[in-house]
Amino acid sequence: MNTDNSAPIGIFDSGIGGLTVAHKVKDLMPNESMVYFGDIAHLPYGDKSAAAIQAYSIKVTDVLLQQGCKLILIACNSASSAAFELVREYVGSKAKVFNVIDPVVDHVSKNYSNQKVGLIGTKQTVNSNAYEFRLKQLNPSIELKSLATPLLVPMIEEGFFENRISHDIIEAYLKNEELDDIEALILGCTHYPLIKKEINKFYEGRVDILDSATIVAKKLQLFLKEQNLLTEQKFLKDRFLVSDITASFEASAKIFFHKEVHLEKCPIWD
Amino acid sequence: MNTDNSAPIGIFDSGIGGLTVAHKVKDLMPNESMVYFGDIAHLPYGDKSAAAIQAYSIKVTDVLLQQGCKLILIACNSASSAAFELVREYVGSKAKVFNVIDPVVDHVSKNYSNQKVGLIGTKQTVNSNAYEFRLKQLNPSIELKSLATPLLVPMIEEGFFENRISHDIIEAYLKNEELDDIEALILGCTHYPLIKKEINKFYEGRVDILDSATIVAKKLQLFLKEQNLLTEQKFLKDRFLVSDITASFEASAKIFFHKEVHLEKCPIWD
Repeated sequence: MNTDNSAPIGIFDSGIGGLTVAHKVKDLMPNESMVYFGDIAHLPYGDKSAAAIQAYSIKVTDVLLQQGCKLILIACNSASSAAFELVREYVGSKAKVFNVIDPVVDHVSKNYSNQKVGLIGTKQTVNSNAYEFRLKQLNPSIELKSLATPLLVPMIEEGFFENRISHDIIEAYLKNEELDDIEALILGCTHYPLIKKEINKFYEGRVDILDSATIVAKKLQLFLKEQNLLTEQKFLKDRFLVSDITASFEASAKIFFHKEVHLEKCPIWD
Repeated sequence: MNTDNSAPIGIFDSGIGGLTVAHKVKDLMPNESMVYFGDIAHLPYGDKSAAAIQAYSIKVTDVLLQQGCKLILIACNSASSAAFELVREYVGSKAKVFNVIDPVVDHVSKNYSNQKVGLIGTKQTVNSNAYEFRLKQLNPSIELKSLATPLLVPMIEEGFFENRISHDIIEAYLKNEELDDIEALILGCTHYPLIKKEINKFYEGRVDILDSATIVAKKLQLFLKEQNLLTEQKFLKDRFLVSDITASFEASAKIFFHKEVHLEKCPIWD
């Protein structure tokens, strides 16, 4: 493992959603440097086969390893579910690999025994049963109720949030009876932190909203601290690499990352 | 050309959107038999390169030719824009080929001289300038104002229409100043006939809503009549072929086609 404290944290996603996680990581650990990779050329991963997602993930991982990352975080639910074990094996001892599903499942299994917990995500995430499968192994007493909420990603990407339209769409989904009487709701998509406030408003505080960005960032911080890998001083500039650049991407990136982002094209697929 | 009157009309799309056109075709010409092909394995075409769309279109065209179609209609804006000329050359004298863009542009060029006309569609359709380019050639006096309305397809596919949510989203798009003072609005996506009523309501009759499904179906009818190719008696059962079957597809197909649809898997990509 790269034991140079000043080495960057590598984060990747199929697009910009993972920037909500990157934002939380920087929020908790402002001294850490970061290399973000958005594989825009292939987004969304949710539509692709597991084999395709695995191939993309390996190629992106190579870039992050070349950047000397001490830790790699797969900040995408589809890639976490399809490619985590492969990337971990592939990286071997060179860096520690994290995904966005396990820390959340771990948190739920410890805090919601014998309770009913909801999960919202894309069709792909819900149908993959990735959360359900892992949770059953850790704590079978928890009843997980999943609901696919496919309109939320395009809604957020098209800039409809914190207005009447997003309010109505969120309400239409959350009042689904599958989610009746839940104690907590997992936001199973890296886009959803952008509508966490609105979801909280819907439940008026009755339900814990489990935002994977926050949970994952805390897990990373704990790990780096335990391993004595936190840096004390910032050495490197954060970098935001993308495999393709579209016109609207830089503007959207700013919304997801909460501040200006300079994207660099890294044409790994040419 | 296949001059057997009883031969079917072939219609293809990347998915189910083209069923709105198929519905209008059957509505106008109930005696005609139809073979519909939905290339669900590759939907949406809007994300793919022109070369990919061309390759898919040729393979689907082969299936329709094998079914002995007397006419092939490309009922998809992306394929109409990327693959029409190629398919027409490929089919040669075996069948007449239509697309969903030219009949609409033709209609607009004849009826809206010196006026301002709006177009709504997916990002891909709007950015391709396919309508603008063709319209400039036929009647440069018409000012075409295009607006990408990317949330409408997922909104319709997820069943949000004729309710408050769809009303709000439609209103948010249509009140964009780009579309101020238009005389007519082109629905540049085969999904949009499902929200034509709501769009009409927004404009309160002040704007002509040009639904390509209706315009294209009339064009086909006229052509078949002129060529003496209309059938007098129905011989064949309509068929609905798809390159992949997903759980929700048959239910959605019913909404787009306005009646029960039996899908047959035709695995041309295996």
